[in-house]
Amino acid sequence: MENLTEEKLFAQLQELIGNISDLDEAAMGQVQERLDSLTKPQGSLGQLEQIAKQLGGIQGTSNPQIKKKAVLLMAGDHGIAAEGVSAFPQEVTPQMVYNIMNDGAAINVLARQANADVFCTDVGVAFPIEATGNIIQKRVANGTKNMAKGPAMSRQEALQALLAGAEVAQEKIQAGYNLFATGDLGIGNTTPSSAIVSLFTNSPLEDVVGRGTGIDDAGLINKRQAIQKAIDVNQPNTEDALDVLCKVGGLEIAAIAGSILQAAASRVPIVVDGFISTAGALVAANLAPKSTAFMIPSHGSVEPGHCKALAGLGLEPVLNLNMRLGEGTGAALTFHLVEAALHILNEMSTFADAGVSEKS
Amino acid sequence: MENLTEEKLFAQLQELIGNISDLDEAAMGQVQERLDSLTKPQGSLGQLEQIAKQLGGIQGTSNPQIKKKAVLLMAGDHGIAAEGVSAFPQEVTPQMVYNIMNDGAAINVLARQANADVFCTDVGVAFPIEATGNIIQKRVANGTKNMAKGPAMSRQEALQALLAGAEVAQEKIQAGYNLFATGDLGIGNTTPSSAIVSLFTNSPLEDVVGRGTGIDDAGLINKRQAIQKAIDVNQPNTEDALDVLCKVGGLEIAAIAGSILQAAASRVPIVVDGFISTAGALVAANLAPKSTAFMIPSHGSVEPGHCKALAGLGLEPVLNLNMRLGEGTGAALTFHLVEAALHILNEMSTFADAGVSEKS
Repeated sequence: MENLTEEKLFAQLQELIGNISDLDEAAMGQVQERLDSLTKPQGSLGQLEQIAKQLGGIQGTSNPQIKKKAVLLMAGDHGIAAEGVSAFPQEVTPQMVYNIMNDGAAINVLARQANADVFCTDVGVAFPIEATGNIIQKRVANGTKNMAKGPAMSRQEALQALLAGAEVAQEKIQAGYNLFATGDLGIGNTTPSSAIVSLFTNSPLEDVVGRGTGIDDAGLINKRQAIQKAIDVNQPNTEDALDVLCKVGGLEIAAIAGSILQAAASRVPIVVDGFISTAGALVAANLAPKSTAFMIPSHGSVEPGHCKALAGLGLEPVLNLNMRLGEGTGAALTFHLVEAALHILNEMSTFADAGVSEKS
Repeated sequence: MENLTEEKLFAQLQELIGNISDLDEAAMGQVQERLDSLTKPQGSLGQLEQIAKQLGGIQGTSNPQIKKKAVLLMAGDHGIAAEGVSAFPQEVTPQMVYNIMNDGAAINVLARQANADVFCTDVGVAFPIEATGNIIQKRVANGTKNMAKGPAMSRQEALQALLAGAEVAQEKIQAGYNLFATGDLGIGNTTPSSAIVSLFTNSPLEDVVGRGTGIDDAGLINKRQAIQKAIDVNQPNTEDALDVLCKVGGLEIAAIAGSILQAAASRVPIVVDGFISTAGALVAANLAPKSTAFMIPSHGSVEPGHCKALAGLGLEPVLNLNMRLGEGTGAALTFHLVEAALHILNEMSTFADAGVSEKS
């Protein structure tokens, strides 16, 4: 992929986007009909019913099924960390990649509970990473550059990272996975995410910049200034999602966006995790507005910009847990709710079968 | 139990309440210490960490465990249904009891997914119910009376229903269950719940009366008037939780409160379901303020009074699914999150074990 010209990479991205179509309205109507025949007041299972309908629309059947589930975790480092925007040192990124490989991270625990597999892709860690076990090596660069001093990456690198994310999704779809969660890993990555959310939702930085892994008040002011500087220096064009991505984004954020685009093109539902993942989802939505129909929201993060980012996508969180960890943890917890929606659709009795009187 | 005098029943309730003590602070401190050693920013798993700590405090150990899980569903009918407050006819209550017995209701499906058992207790259905399978027979009366015309039940009946709920919880604790969900079933039961929530949270009826299973605008006005009439006719004393319960409550609401009190007295965590269950939890909290420490919140219902009721208990919902079904459905979904909290506590690597650098 590294040898392809920017033009060829852009053509690949356009082809991917062109493959995204609408949900199947007929299938959704059939799912709705079934839901309305079940022994409960119509609509009383709220979002579970919406998810069941969405899955029907995505899979194009009145009888959607989940086979294998995967968390597609994208890892990368951020040059902006040099500006002191994070409470943790940058070497934590590779350390956490190995922690994930060794099954010790929160996402391993929560994915195991949900009977899902975790795949962690190195799209741009700044330290050497050996690809073994569940670690996939698709590094585009040794970390993004410091966006306070210029673009975080070149347009070519952004395209490569987008397509790397798509490639991982495609490989896992071919391996039989048909429900995904997004996930992120990278010290400093709430900083580019805040920039992306601010630009795409037209929100002031005051409303979208938060404490990430736990910076103090002075750190928060510094982080906000670093983002402002990045925006001033790079002047991203919000009409061009790729321009925003390469100037103030991150390699793993690009890969998350790419995994979403591939999921949508392959008609596979994808649960969007917290703040960084939602920034990636905003990139995907700005590249391909139809991709939002394939996204399932998860939790509402403590990061103040998350609700704005979700609202920008027309999504509402289903979990309210005051989490701020990333890795796909909120999305993995949401797998239980997605499966609940299908259990309801497939296993409840109808009014007719159960001999229960309907609404008078 | 029916043969005991009101005084003897009241003494039993007082004894039960007297057995409720505080959470174990030392155990909670140990859980906190362990959580803070795990490879994640401190506190970044939000409510999952709070739940882990709460379970440690309830079980009095740094290593809380869940063995068997049960949904304790309480069923009863409501005389107020005669005022046309519900969209469904009253015979749906027994029909749904049988639907639950036959594994066809939403709660059966969601409990099965969570590997939990459902027990449905008839505390006051107005129609004959045969107790077989998972149906438990502890009927106090053939439905409550119409509270728009007098007390919903006598003080003796309210005590019997409270203790019936406690008895079921006690039986299940003896059978090895150590995590409960509350659940309700009863046509018309959002009406007494609205009265209870309005009285205990000092909220105007406009703010707490909703559409239940689906009444229209005229029905909503009628429902509000029926509740106002019940309050005017009965003049419940909000300083006396038992007075509120017997005048504008319901037999299954009393049983829910009783199951919560027994869970608290036996140091078993209990997940509180939606609007009706939370009304029961308010009764329990007003009888025994210490019982709130044993409650775990679940979803935020569409019923407008639910957030007020939860706030009255100092609880915040963890699920945001726009549900309005009852039966314990939101609580059963929450079982996944409670178990996630313990998986995190018990299975994640520490910073030391994983060789991950800590916050700088």
